[in-house]
Amino acid sequence: MASESTTAHPFEDAPNHVTPTVIHDPILTKTDFKRVGTRPLRPDGLDKVTGRARYGADFNMPGQLVGLVLRSPHAHAKIKKIDTSKAEKLAGVKAVITFADMPDHTGGDQSMYDILENCMARGVAKYDGHAVAAVAAVDAATARAALKLIKVDYEVLKHVTDVDEAVKPGAPLVNPKNITEGVEPKPTKPSNIAKRTEFGHGDVDAGFKEADVIVTRSFRTEQTHQGYIEPHACVASVSPDGTGELWVCTQGHFVYRNHCAMLLGMDVSKLRVTSSEIGGGFGGKTHVWAEPVALALSRKANRPVKLTMTRDEVFRASGPTSATSIDVKIGAKKDGTIVAADATLRFTCGPYYGMWAELGAMTAFACYDLKNVRTVGYEVLVNRPKTAAYRAPSAPMAAFAVESVMDELAHKIGMNEVDFRIKNAAKQGTRASYGPVYGPIGIGATLEAAKKHPHMKAPLGKNQGRGMACGFWFNFGGQTCTDINIGPDGSVTLTVGTVDVGGSRASLALCVAEELGVPYEQVKCLVADTGTLGHNDMTDGSRGTFSSSMAGIFAARNAVTVLRERAAKMWEIPVDDVKWEDGHAKAVGSKYGNLAPLSIKEIAAAAGNTGGPIAGHSEIVADGAGVSFATHIADVEVDPETGRSKIVRYTVIQDAGKAVHPTYVEGQYQGGAAQGIGWALNEEYIYGKDGRLQNPGFLDYRIPVCSDLPMIDTQILEIPNPNHPYGVRGVGETSIVPPLAAIANAMSNAFGVRMTHVPMSPPRVLKALEAAKNG
Amino acid sequence: MASESTTAHPFEDAPNHVTPTVIHDPILTKTDFKRVGTRPLRPDGLDKVTGRARYGADFNMPGQLVGLVLRSPHAHAKIKKIDTSKAEKLAGVKAVITFADMPDHTGGDQSMYDILENCMARGVAKYDGHAVAAVAAVDAATARAALKLIKVDYEVLKHVTDVDEAVKPGAPLVNPKNITEGVEPKPTKPSNIAKRTEFGHGDVDAGFKEADVIVTRSFRTEQTHQGYIEPHACVASVSPDGTGELWVCTQGHFVYRNHCAMLLGMDVSKLRVTSSEIGGGFGGKTHVWAEPVALALSRKANRPVKLTMTRDEVFRASGPTSATSIDVKIGAKKDGTIVAADATLRFTCGPYYGMWAELGAMTAFACYDLKNVRTVGYEVLVNRPKTAAYRAPSAPMAAFAVESVMDELAHKIGMNEVDFRIKNAAKQGTRASYGPVYGPIGIGATLEAAKKHPHMKAPLGKNQGRGMACGFWFNFGGQTCTDINIGPDGSVTLTVGTVDVGGSRASLALCVAEELGVPYEQVKCLVADTGTLGHNDMTDGSRGTFSSSMAGIFAARNAVTVLRERAAKMWEIPVDDVKWEDGHAKAVGSKYGNLAPLSIKEIAAAAGNTGGPIAGHSEIVADGAGVSFATHIADVEVDPETGRSKIVRYTVIQDAGKAVHPTYVEGQYQGGAAQGIGWALNEEYIYGKDGRLQNPGFLDYRIPVCSDLPMIDTQILEIPNPNHPYGVRGVGETSIVPPLAAIANAMSNAFGVRMTHVPMSPPRVLKALEAAKNG
Repeated sequence: MASESTTAHPFEDAPNHVTPTVIHDPILTKTDFKRVGTRPLRPDGLDKVTGRARYGADFNMPGQLVGLVLRSPHAHAKIKKIDTSKAEKLAGVKAVITFADMPDHTGGDQSMYDILENCMARGVAKYDGHAVAAVAAVDAATARAALKLIKVDYEVLKHVTDVDEAVKPGAPLVNPKNITEGVEPKPTKPSNIAKRTEFGHGDVDAGFKEADVIVTRSFRTEQTHQGYIEPHACVASVSPDGTGELWVCTQGHFVYRNHCAMLLGMDVSKLRVTSSEIGGGFGGKTHVWAEPVALALSRKANRPVKLTMTRDEVFRASGPTSATSIDVKIGAKKDGTIVAADATLRFTCGPYYGMWAELGAMTAFACYDLKNVRTVGYEVLVNRPKTAAYRAPSAPMAAFAVESVMDELAHKIGMNEVDFRIKNAAKQGTRASYGPVYGPIGIGATLEAAKKHPHMKAPLGKNQGRGMACGFWFNFGGQTCTDINIGPDGSVTLTVGTVDVGGSRASLALCVAEELGVPYEQVKCLVADTGTLGHNDMTDGSRGTFSSSMAGIFAARNAVTVLRERAAKMWEIPVDDVKWEDGHAKAVGSKYGNLAPLSIKEIAAAAGNTGGPIAGHSEIVADGAGVSFATHIADVEVDPETGRSKIVRYTVIQDAGKAVHPTYVEGQYQGGAAQGIGWALNEEYIYGKDGRLQNPGFLDYRIPVCSDLPMIDTQILEIPNPNHPYGVRGVGETSIVPPLAAIANAMSNAFGVRMTHVPMSPPRVLKALEAAKNG
Repeated sequence: MASESTTAHPFEDAPNHVTPTVIHDPILTKTDFKRVGTRPLRPDGLDKVTGRARYGADFNMPGQLVGLVLRSPHAHAKIKKIDTSKAEKLAGVKAVITFADMPDHTGGDQSMYDILENCMARGVAKYDGHAVAAVAAVDAATARAALKLIKVDYEVLKHVTDVDEAVKPGAPLVNPKNITEGVEPKPTKPSNIAKRTEFGHGDVDAGFKEADVIVTRSFRTEQTHQGYIEPHACVASVSPDGTGELWVCTQGHFVYRNHCAMLLGMDVSKLRVTSSEIGGGFGGKTHVWAEPVALALSRKANRPVKLTMTRDEVFRASGPTSATSIDVKIGAKKDGTIVAADATLRFTCGPYYGMWAELGAMTAFACYDLKNVRTVGYEVLVNRPKTAAYRAPSAPMAAFAVESVMDELAHKIGMNEVDFRIKNAAKQGTRASYGPVYGPIGIGATLEAAKKHPHMKAPLGKNQGRGMACGFWFNFGGQTCTDINIGPDGSVTLTVGTVDVGGSRASLALCVAEELGVPYEQVKCLVADTGTLGHNDMTDGSRGTFSSSMAGIFAARNAVTVLRERAAKMWEIPVDDVKWEDGHAKAVGSKYGNLAPLSIKEIAAAAGNTGGPIAGHSEIVADGAGVSFATHIADVEVDPETGRSKIVRYTVIQDAGKAVHPTYVEGQYQGGAAQGIGWALNEEYIYGKDGRLQNPGFLDYRIPVCSDLPMIDTQILEIPNPNHPYGVRGVGETSIVPPLAAIANAMSNAFGVRMTHVPMSPPRVLKALEAAKNG
């Protein structure tokens, strides 16, 4: 999260903001801001530090039961029989459910069926931690006792958890019916490759023939978890009349509503979902896990049910990232021009496939202007939990491989890494490796800024190296609804449907205050439950502030239209003679010299006599998300005795589009970098030969703590997104993309050792150092 | 509440609905209904009978404290000093407040200041039960102990609780600064008469000179309580950042928000109020009592605070009705024509004045077409709790007096009571006694229906008498906001801001289903919290269904416009070629023969590709509430030995305008009649000479229970309100207006004894019987 103390950054001389030429466009309507760009106090801060904020487990309903889930201890097992009779007879147990209590309402929708099966195993447990039954009881002790009374008769099957093992012929099949999609002709034999996907343009083979230097390397990254502090928690209540309520920690309560309603066979309008405050999500709270189970328990018990996951359950049975195996080949001329780029990316996805391969193949070379480029992605089924997004899903792994090779290639042709990238950077008009032609973009600007940044001249100590890398993320748009209601005292309520995961309530209130011309403090932004707004897509893909600010600005403009009409009515003059300026209605024309401007407060106070409450609404598909680029610089110190690495300096330079609330933007930059550092150096899922997760806890799965990190410096570039009225892009994802490669490149620069396996944990670094010494 | 078993009514032959000629008007747009007028199951029923529904006390917040209020034991006392020091020192006490913790933010708004002072006495306790201090503690026992440790130094003042005593010269002054309003020239001496108000037209004195017969009588009614089963309860949480939340049982959470925000000095947008289910209100939950105190406690304690009133507190310190003293004089010719009517009405209002005298003076003669009429109302201050509305406030008392005299006059000129009223009934074009000229109205129709009703021919037994009386209520409109959001599966959420006190969620869903052309079950109606809609006035004055259905229908029409646009987009044809019919978009014109109609579900499923979620919004002032009239028939049996009365038959005939959900309409008719019967026969506040309430509990304050009542028969007349798109009027209030008089008239017909003091409790009836026997 953002720190207020930006003055404590190590590079005080570095410009905090760089604003290149503004591109004007019909959608981009504002470049002179009074409130946007300021740094008001975060509105949720006080309640969060005092404990008043209510998270997923902080809600209770009268008569509520405790729900617990029984999980498979096997990586892969046929469930021959589940005997719940003893558990059902235990006093205090109000419901025991298995998949039989969650009949299939998905009507042939495979991805929804996968979600259903992942929530509760249907005949086969597909990973260690897969839910097989659940109980609701009057208290936790009774629920725990009941779990122990459920007898599951398993037939253990062969399993596979490793990405490279899984694609080998003869590997145990995670889904014996799986036939690879995206391959022509359609394969006849099942395999663990769920999907093949390819992007690119030009003639890659011909391109490589023009190359003076070619670098080819293979890489691996291990599975990580988003590591949000707050475990999944919800309270569900289903009435026998077919209506239901769900209080839940989520990144998208509208999507949870739609999914849960479908899985439970309810009308969408009859399930009301309220999102709690969120103690971190980072993509991991975009899928339903416990929620349909809690609803099914409540429906059977006819009582509200609270279900909270333990940390062990979060690791074993929520949605970590993908583990990958990636081959990259890039060829360049001596002058530094890349002539061809090729990558093959294999992403594990657990037992059910997702978007990993596609997003990895799309993002891999997105930073560069390439004539000949090809990326092929494979989605690989393994006996691990169903993956979920983690901040720019797929991009960090792809960037790790590509940006490592970029450095190696630069060195081989004797070019500075930054200059090599500047030479090949994508620009406005570049056809992206994944298809579209870029509008105004910031990759070049971030590289130029990095080159000039004082960090580049900071002295390095013993055993220290400096590396840099670039990163890309699309940013998302999508369905979005906002309401603005002006109270009788002129204070403004802005109601949004995108969960605030990183400060969007402040940003959205700033945008609406800007548009209405009122102080930020006069606008209160609330996240509505699903009963009171139209559908909103998830807060994911860095879409929250982009899309809800767009909808909020449009809603504010609608409200301004009403405000002008009301002022015209109060003055009894034509509405065309009323303009809106600085939060006031003003009569235009010398004949109205006697009419003093009317404030929102004055117009609102009269609303009961001029037509009723004043509101503005907006339901949109927020098209035109602006792509985002970053360049990171990392200084790493490696202890050659232990292999332990320490980040000694770190700088994030990223294009935000318009930075609505710069402190939050900096916080996103810092947060993404911190998570990327953890991923690069320590975090990984470790599976035993039995296919069971060996480190499902924060003692053995080590995320960085404060003392592991330096102050992460940030520099915000503002290249406005022409498709947003204020030029907003999105800032949450890109910052996690470069760290893996930046740190690997720093290690290479420190010791000449190229790390190709993430995390670059002490044992792996030590092994690499020793191999280099001996080789 | 409504009974489903309408077939159990005693008069099965009586037509349940009577629909006179429909008046067409530009606003009244629909008279052929498919869904409106049907009787679907109530949507809140199952949750209410199973206990899942959450009322005021059924909500909790983590860390919540228990709030309790210390109340004055004196009817009138100067508060010389409050010593809270001992209470503050008690372990577990987190806040103790007095008026000093509730500084005056009302800025000269007298009515808001009165509310503030009523919530917490400021220097003077003005009635038995007036709040003087409050505590918040970790549990109820600690809070109770703390209350006992607060030392209040009172100086007892002279008090007055009786309406006739209070207006006498030399009566103790409830407010020594009170100068009567509405009197010219302005009085120089203070008194307990807060306000004088007068309505009427013609020359009353001249009119009486034309009379052949004149009847003059004086009446008294005692103070009653609404007797809602659920005591006031709320949970308040105020953060040090100036925002707050309130969960509360109320008839109008938006008004509570506005009032509490003003009293606490907060922005309206920063206080979010959620209304619970309501266990009865009937006007008594239209004022803030405990809520500002709970918020002030939470602000001081920096913890959430739950405050629930005991039954004793509800009686002593919430808002009962007015006690009255009324003089009526009516003169008629022998042919039955009324030539003049005059009434003087005195209403107690507690220590702070309200709308009693005005509403009483307006409603008294509203049923009749009178050439010469005058009503004078007085608002009288007494040392009793601040009054609140109770179902058609003021009208039952005024009708008791007027309708008693009407009967007596009819008898004196030898006319049947019904015929006499029919002859003088107001009709379309009549200038009402309170000013306006009536549009199409139903008083004549209810009287004609009563005349024909089988009840009129039912045989009377020993000691039984039959009486009838008429009643009137304005019905209210006011500020109203609704949203309609169509889910991705085509199910519809209707969000309203009027609390559902009597079934409005069903009625509103019916109207929106009608307008959209979809099944009732496809529409879910929710009451939104204040954060998600614009301001809504209270659910009072029978405005809930009238105003929110009007706004809901308009919102549905807006949604239909969007649905047609989306269908046009899907078909790629002009929107003008798309009509909406039977819940489907249909292409108009032979060239579109290939286009199958699109359902809401199909259009909603495509919304993400056609512009985003589909919604309709409406913010209005619902003008044009249609006045409502009723005629009641009551058969009463009086035990001459004990004076105990029993209602043996009861029939309500009332104009509903369009009856949206007839079962709920019947329920309102029955509920109003039942409460009127209780008022007529038993209910009253009994004050001792010390000014303390002697019967603050349901054992001594006796509301009717099931066994006290017959099945109340109902007949709905439907004279459409031309100012509502579906002709809706309002049905909640009028039914409590006639019972007092109908029962008094029945007693008079049974024994020839004219009861002039309500309640006509056994001691009063016995006394009257004995007086008649002896006189």
